[in-house]
Amino acid sequence: MKRTKVVDALKSTDYGKEIVVKGWARSHRSSKAVDFIALNDGSTIKNLQVVVDPSAVDAEELKSITTGACIGVEGTLVESQGKGQTVEVQAKKIVIYGLCPNDYPMQKKGQSFEYMRQFAHMRLRTNTFGAVFRIRHNMAIAIHKYFHDHGFYYFNTPLITASDAEGAGEMFQVTTLDLDRVAKEGQVDYSKDFFGKKTNLTVSGQLEGELGATALGAIYTFGPTFRAENSNTPRHLAEFWMIEPEIAFMDKDELMDLEEDFIKYCVQWALDNCMDDLEFLNKMIDKTLLDTLHSVVKESFVRLPYTEGIKILEQAVKDGHKFENPVTGWGMDLNSEHERYLVEQHFKKPVIMTDYPSEIKAFYMKKNPDGKTMQGTDVLFPRIGEIIGGSVREESYEKLLDEIEKRHMKESTYSWYLDTRKYGSCPHAGFGLGFERLILFVTGMQNIRDVIPFPRTPKNAEF
Amino acid sequence: MKRTKVVDALKSTDYGKEIVVKGWARSHRSSKAVDFIALNDGSTIKNLQVVVDPSAVDAEELKSITTGACIGVEGTLVESQGKGQTVEVQAKKIVIYGLCPNDYPMQKKGQSFEYMRQFAHMRLRTNTFGAVFRIRHNMAIAIHKYFHDHGFYYFNTPLITASDAEGAGEMFQVTTLDLDRVAKEGQVDYSKDFFGKKTNLTVSGQLEGELGATALGAIYTFGPTFRAENSNTPRHLAEFWMIEPEIAFMDKDELMDLEEDFIKYCVQWALDNCMDDLEFLNKMIDKTLLDTLHSVVKESFVRLPYTEGIKILEQAVKDGHKFENPVTGWGMDLNSEHERYLVEQHFKKPVIMTDYPSEIKAFYMKKNPDGKTMQGTDVLFPRIGEIIGGSVREESYEKLLDEIEKRHMKESTYSWYLDTRKYGSCPHAGFGLGFERLILFVTGMQNIRDVIPFPRTPKNAEF
Repeated sequence: MKRTKVVDALKSTDYGKEIVVKGWARSHRSSKAVDFIALNDGSTIKNLQVVVDPSAVDAEELKSITTGACIGVEGTLVESQGKGQTVEVQAKKIVIYGLCPNDYPMQKKGQSFEYMRQFAHMRLRTNTFGAVFRIRHNMAIAIHKYFHDHGFYYFNTPLITASDAEGAGEMFQVTTLDLDRVAKEGQVDYSKDFFGKKTNLTVSGQLEGELGATALGAIYTFGPTFRAENSNTPRHLAEFWMIEPEIAFMDKDELMDLEEDFIKYCVQWALDNCMDDLEFLNKMIDKTLLDTLHSVVKESFVRLPYTEGIKILEQAVKDGHKFENPVTGWGMDLNSEHERYLVEQHFKKPVIMTDYPSEIKAFYMKKNPDGKTMQGTDVLFPRIGEIIGGSVREESYEKLLDEIEKRHMKESTYSWYLDTRKYGSCPHAGFGLGFERLILFVTGMQNIRDVIPFPRTPKNAEF
Repeated sequence: MKRTKVVDALKSTDYGKEIVVKGWARSHRSSKAVDFIALNDGSTIKNLQVVVDPSAVDAEELKSITTGACIGVEGTLVESQGKGQTVEVQAKKIVIYGLCPNDYPMQKKGQSFEYMRQFAHMRLRTNTFGAVFRIRHNMAIAIHKYFHDHGFYYFNTPLITASDAEGAGEMFQVTTLDLDRVAKEGQVDYSKDFFGKKTNLTVSGQLEGELGATALGAIYTFGPTFRAENSNTPRHLAEFWMIEPEIAFMDKDELMDLEEDFIKYCVQWALDNCMDDLEFLNKMIDKTLLDTLHSVVKESFVRLPYTEGIKILEQAVKDGHKFENPVTGWGMDLNSEHERYLVEQHFKKPVIMTDYPSEIKAFYMKKNPDGKTMQGTDVLFPRIGEIIGGSVREESYEKLLDEIEKRHMKESTYSWYLDTRKYGSCPHAGFGLGFERLILFVTGMQNIRDVIPFPRTPKNAEF
């Protein structure tokens, strides 16, 4: 008999039907008259109640089915008499695939996330992480669907690269040199390295993405990105996933429209497709989660020039608001707490901040005619701060080269990038979204290590 | 006025409508009475013909629009009088965004793929590579859609890892140690490395994928994978993308059904969604392409035990067929030419080869009761050879441990993997598909370096 997934069994009203379900016991309660096994197969956060007549099954076998054990159940789908579910299965036959010894690390409820992180391979079997990773999947699907429906092409930029995307960010080196031999020989000979030169893991696919956009019209990347920053915080990962769309012929207003439409689409997708998981997280993790998600899709995002934003922050300080990081006035780089103040306290809705000082932003961003500010369009979100960093790109070869020289960057490293401005240059714009930041926002989770299956952080590369 | 994409303009029959199109000149023909500019914006392989009355535009400006130049055109959509297109645009106004100097590397037609590889950032603007990368996008979308529709969760396995997925395959080391300092100090101190130990780039996400499948029920990975093999061939990349689904409670027959259904879905998606690009490639690259694609979706795949396959190959040798690599009989590992013989000459349809000798396959594959063969299910394709490698996984803790010891692998390295068999073990199965092999098959391209935007191969990490 073909297996029925728990998610489908729970939706069925085909009472009296014989079905086979397979999964893991989340709990097992025994009484003289009847045993209840809560069966979960990962297809949904909900368990299917399996009702067992203990007289019909081998007593020792039945007893051995403890939390975490994997079983198959053949039985009849019946209307449930109990609370909390509409259907249950009356077992006729139980097959044990794998028992679960009582040192199973996920046995107890209410363990800390820190504890569970040590068992990242087992935490996947808990309610919380099941919910988080089903939502993570759904966000990835929403992203691909959005861009596909809007005529963007998925474009795979390289992970190993000899260039440094922004001249910023600590990088991991990639090598096939034998380090013990390097130590022994007392010299590094990159001509013997795999690529014949020093190579690193990419910190961003944007520059290569621009090569795609200025040929295919509109592309998006969605892949892993790396930063070797020694930051042990709930907001940093050494390996994380980025989404970086890049669009030819797009101006600043169109870019802001895209950012807002895109992120609302993703959040709406979660509300439309992940409500069971969201309700669980709203109950267990963050009681404001659903309200926040609903509010984001409903509100029009404020479009706020940086200069105005600084004035608001300065006024807040005058009015007695205490920031941990000082508001030093025009030219300062905003901290997450400043961004959150604007979003959560001043406007009470998401903000797209525009026209930052050029000096605090990357070399490729298009300058405004004032010569001081650039056409940036960062989206600031409640709880997260900056969730999207975007800008129009400088399309003038001369201006871009000028900026590269001004910043003492190496022109030859960027020759291929400059070529897009040399040959048939076009106005274009794009943005970057840290996937895990989106997942933090949509799940209400607090620590970025809990929204990626196997987090990479300083001193931690387990599994 | 809002920009119309070329793909949409070409479908429109809204004659007389004023539109704005933007893109790159693929060619520019001039005569006294009229100029024709073939405009392409990457949204389709087809160009939109822009008709210009030279008396209405600045003569110098018009002349400056050479192949590769980027322009915007405001004009009227009209029914075309010429052959090969149904609509064209009569220009009223032309804006030049970026001229294209005549050292533009993609100016000439008919350049070799080898030449174009040196300009991987510019080759994206050619017909062939536009077609290849639009198809690549579509295959990614088909893959996500297939798995999402079938209840699989997209699962991001780590790229940086301290483990070696199969004990096979040369790996790239990832480090933040300063190699010059290592050389100077004459020793390697991994306690000072970012992760506090030696780490590598993953060669496969499968083992971590199994952790996902035995919790969420069914997952798939789709991400970059790395091999530091010094292979300079048209079939090897140091960085490539893999798709690795893994499914709890799946047996060998169900796995073969999944493999066949999945890959047919992808090929059918290309036929349904990429016909313009496929027709171009069928004409320019491989005249058998469309026939091959149609045949794959139509034919039932042969399901062939390895032992039978060897007999067929031995018979072929007896009948005078010459193989470059000798057919040495049962126990041999098949070479691509052997696989292609079975598919292209013997059966003339795709083959799923099963039940390989355990010894030539990985440690995690489930053995048959004969103790000699394992439940493998590799899909062999015309032109490609092995396109999918799959198997049922060994779910018995004891048998898996036994195999790890027999192969002199380090048990402690796999403790987390063994845990899936220790706690609530379940039967499961999965397969791996090299994304670029699928793209080679679907596009008819010959060299794997031409189906990924920026190939990484020995001595080559440009862009």
